[in-house]
Amino acid sequence: MYIDQPIRHFLDKLASESPEPGGGSVAALTGALGAGLVSMVASLTMGKEKYKDVQLQIEALFKESEKLRNEMQALIQKDTEAYGALSEVYKMPKNTDAEKAARTVKLQEALKKACQVPFEIGLTSLEVAKLSERAADIGNVAAVSDAGVAVLLAQACAQSAALNVKININSIKDQAFNNETWTRMQDVLNQVAALEKSVMATTYRKMG
Amino acid sequence: MYIDQPIRHFLDKLASESPEPGGGSVAALTGALGAGLVSMVASLTMGKEKYKDVQLQIEALFKESEKLRNEMQALIQKDTEAYGALSEVYKMPKNTDAEKAARTVKLQEALKKACQVPFEIGLTSLEVAKLSERAADIGNVAAVSDAGVAVLLAQACAQSAALNVKININSIKDQAFNNETWTRMQDVLNQVAALEKSVMATTYRKMG
Repeated sequence: MYIDQPIRHFLDKLASESPEPGGGSVAALTGALGAGLVSMVASLTMGKEKYKDVQLQIEALFKESEKLRNEMQALIQKDTEAYGALSEVYKMPKNTDAEKAARTVKLQEALKKACQVPFEIGLTSLEVAKLSERAADIGNVAAVSDAGVAVLLAQACAQSAALNVKININSIKDQAFNNETWTRMQDVLNQVAALEKSVMATTYRKMG
Repeated sequence: MYIDQPIRHFLDKLASESPEPGGGSVAALTGALGAGLVSMVASLTMGKEKYKDVQLQIEALFKESEKLRNEMQALIQKDTEAYGALSEVYKMPKNTDAEKAARTVKLQEALKKACQVPFEIGLTSLEVAKLSERAADIGNVAAVSDAGVAVLLAQACAQSAALNVKININSIKDQAFNNETWTRMQDVLNQVAALEKSVMATTYRKMG
């Protein structure tokens, strides 16, 4: 698993001609960093006398951000696996009509799976953005810039996920699937953009 | 060095109450991921017959993006070190007037150094954004979404760097330094925002 290997290994392989890890895995890692920053803000607020009135909410926030971080960490690998499965299907023979038909069916299935992963990354990034708002609102003010960085990463994650949804959609023939997926993805992008605006305003205001 | 340790270690420590790694290191890692994606687009274009007319430019692009990736990788650590040095100064005694005066001098020096690192991360992110534009313009069209993700990460990096510049500026008494640094930082943010807009437009257009 990439996550158990050195950061340098991930970056070196990313920069190489190896098609994976690619933009989808990077989006998930970016989202994991955002969730990690929310957890950090919560960690720096827990047990602090000055924040005794919000301890229950902060503990809940920490649990939720750690859950999202775990999901994002799993999605780094899931994106690579879906891409690998798709690459295998592209190698299927297409000499006869029967082979072509079988390949088309498998390809459409693999494309939908490969599309599903960045879509899930996008949905998860919206949850990270929501938590960054709570971190900026009730978390340790000395760490408010970290809540700000968290929402910036959530937004970069969402927009990167959208690009990776779009690539797959372009090859998927099921228009109902495409329309529904893209409409929901746009809705996620709009919600994340609104959160980014509001959390950044809070962050700069609290930094003074 | 964080970069030689597993991704999981970085994320676990980020989420903890340990103040480092913090938003500055995360900004640098985000920038390194962006530079790595530019290198990937270049790698996937090198030696391809279809792109034979741009081979020289692509090789130059790869060299430049790898240089920026190395710089960003070094900045991950540099931010942590500057933060560590600052934390040490905060622990200096302040019982007597002489101690207070000595501490203030050291503190102002350490704050400027801690401010310099995210500022450098911001400047480097602008270079990454410029390269992502070239990657989107002349790189393998099959990897154009990766050029798009690169510019999104460059922007998140620049904005995150700005937040970390701002925190330090708030405690720095040298107003001339603060004004110059913040004005230049704003200029970087404006340039990166313009590049993000244009590279995203190119990416969506080329994806079809």
